[in-house]
Amino acid sequence: MRIVVDAMGGDHAPANIVAGVVAAVKELEVTITLVGVEDRVNAELSKHFYPKGMIEVIHAPQVVDMDDNPLDVIRKKKDCSITVGINLLKSGGYDAFVSAGNTGALVAAATLYLRMIEGVDRPGIGLVIPQVDGATFLIDVGANAEPKPEHLYQYGQMARVYMQSVFGRENPSVGLVNIGEEEGKGSGFDKQAYDLLKTKVPGFVGNIEPNKIFVSNVDCIVCTGFVGNVIIKLSEGLMESAGVVLKREIKQNPIASLGALLMMGALKDLKRRVDYSEYGGAPLLGVNGIVMKGHGRSTPKAIKNAIRATMREVDHNILDKIRTALK
Amino acid sequence: MRIVVDAMGGDHAPANIVAGVVAAVKELEVTITLVGVEDRVNAELSKHFYPKGMIEVIHAPQVVDMDDNPLDVIRKKKDCSITVGINLLKSGGYDAFVSAGNTGALVAAATLYLRMIEGVDRPGIGLVIPQVDGATFLIDVGANAEPKPEHLYQYGQMARVYMQSVFGRENPSVGLVNIGEEEGKGSGFDKQAYDLLKTKVPGFVGNIEPNKIFVSNVDCIVCTGFVGNVIIKLSEGLMESAGVVLKREIKQNPIASLGALLMMGALKDLKRRVDYSEYGGAPLLGVNGIVMKGHGRSTPKAIKNAIRATMREVDHNILDKIRTALK
Repeated sequence: MRIVVDAMGGDHAPANIVAGVVAAVKELEVTITLVGVEDRVNAELSKHFYPKGMIEVIHAPQVVDMDDNPLDVIRKKKDCSITVGINLLKSGGYDAFVSAGNTGALVAAATLYLRMIEGVDRPGIGLVIPQVDGATFLIDVGANAEPKPEHLYQYGQMARVYMQSVFGRENPSVGLVNIGEEEGKGSGFDKQAYDLLKTKVPGFVGNIEPNKIFVSNVDCIVCTGFVGNVIIKLSEGLMESAGVVLKREIKQNPIASLGALLMMGALKDLKRRVDYSEYGGAPLLGVNGIVMKGHGRSTPKAIKNAIRATMREVDHNILDKIRTALK
Repeated sequence: MRIVVDAMGGDHAPANIVAGVVAAVKELEVTITLVGVEDRVNAELSKHFYPKGMIEVIHAPQVVDMDDNPLDVIRKKKDCSITVGINLLKSGGYDAFVSAGNTGALVAAATLYLRMIEGVDRPGIGLVIPQVDGATFLIDVGANAEPKPEHLYQYGQMARVYMQSVFGRENPSVGLVNIGEEEGKGSGFDKQAYDLLKTKVPGFVGNIEPNKIFVSNVDCIVCTGFVGNVIIKLSEGLMESAGVVLKREIKQNPIASLGALLMMGALKDLKRRVDYSEYGGAPLLGVNGIVMKGHGRSTPKAIKNAIRATMREVDHNILDKIRTALK
């Protein structure tokens, strides 16, 4: 399997990306094409030992910043690692593209160069998020700033394909994030999305209130990109903030400090469970190519896990399955 | 001070409401008018000792269920505790109304009978939420299912009045929940709301990303009712779910169990800090009357705290201040 990886994407690129790629080629059956500023990528590669034939570097002189405007990237940075990488994937001979870079630019380049799958109007980014028991696939978490109700049922259909093929869930259930459980809750948009999901998506189970997301045991949960982005960023921020407050209280209390020491294992397990980097990547679904978005703050482990998750999509031939489902 | 309280609102009404009201009249300088099914309210009152002159009961034969459609309540349940209570407040002689009942019905009745303050198009529900340091006022958390960008700047102005007068914050700062920090992020709606806030609200500091809500140190944060509802319900659900996972891990590990015992104080402090019932109520701002929404799962303590928070609004004459600010 041959996967193209954006060497320049994310807050700690190219160092973390290269380290993750090196770990991937050692542990997984994959060869990697790193796209980025050649000198910088090679300088990072020279710090590692790895089987040389497994990693090649392709030069892309321009670098996309995390806050670059996506349309400016498309217009003015045609030689950036995202655009070059997406076009490599399009050219054939590669199985997928992984980037931890600017989300908007990745979505724009993938949409423009790979084009949409027939039956899908807009791409969506999904993310496997942990629940008290198991995990659920949340889509969209930020690809689509101006969704229409139709986009949400298409997300539901693609999410089902993903959870069925990659996670082996049989007849996956689908819920809609809404501020009330009963049918008819929310705005006109929410009602239209509900009706479309009910009519067009098998396994639709209705509205999921935000406080039930982590206990719902639903396989797939759809929402607008804005709401999905709020859900994942708020969860991250809340767990971090709770950690800060807890640490502060422990510091003031020697008995609690001892308790924290004894509980360290359990607290670390909890942290690991809620840590998105364990899964690693967020698939961009709906375009004609397997594209994976890594977290902007990706660690080497997160990059390796994103590559592993991408390989599963390739193994399960998810593109053809989405094409069939959306026909 | 005379406050009207909906005896029938919330999952544990009238028991928890009556218990909270009894605690309030003992601890605070307030007399309460309980509105609800007289027999049931009196039966609860008979379980408590309290100064008799401080609580009166007014009969309202109809009961609103938590999932009743708000418009049906307005049309068909004119004798419910929410409608009777709001009209008591309107009739004069009372300072405020507190209800832990059906949010939609409360918003609809308050809007219909009390009418909007001049310059405010739609009411919003605000909530004081804890941060790592201090607290912020989040509005709207679920009053307005179809907001327009104008509503958001009005929420910003009302929030400033609230934090300035009730919390003594000088020149309160205001942020907008958005999926990116830079100006121009989000949908057309978000951009319009940003522009209006920038032009019309002093102290506007720009976008707040969801992961920064608990560490932003901004006094007021505005968002749509859908997003605000997601923020508070998701936070609640996430903390509960993390607690369940942690307890499960502790159970499997005797050393961690001992640690948890020693940490109990710190964990309880954390729980208390993130527990909305500590503050008690969520003010409904924008209508011509002081109306407080209590949490549907209110404990007696939460009801007492909601009454205390309501009294602060009355003390600070918040209605006149909002009227002046929105003129």
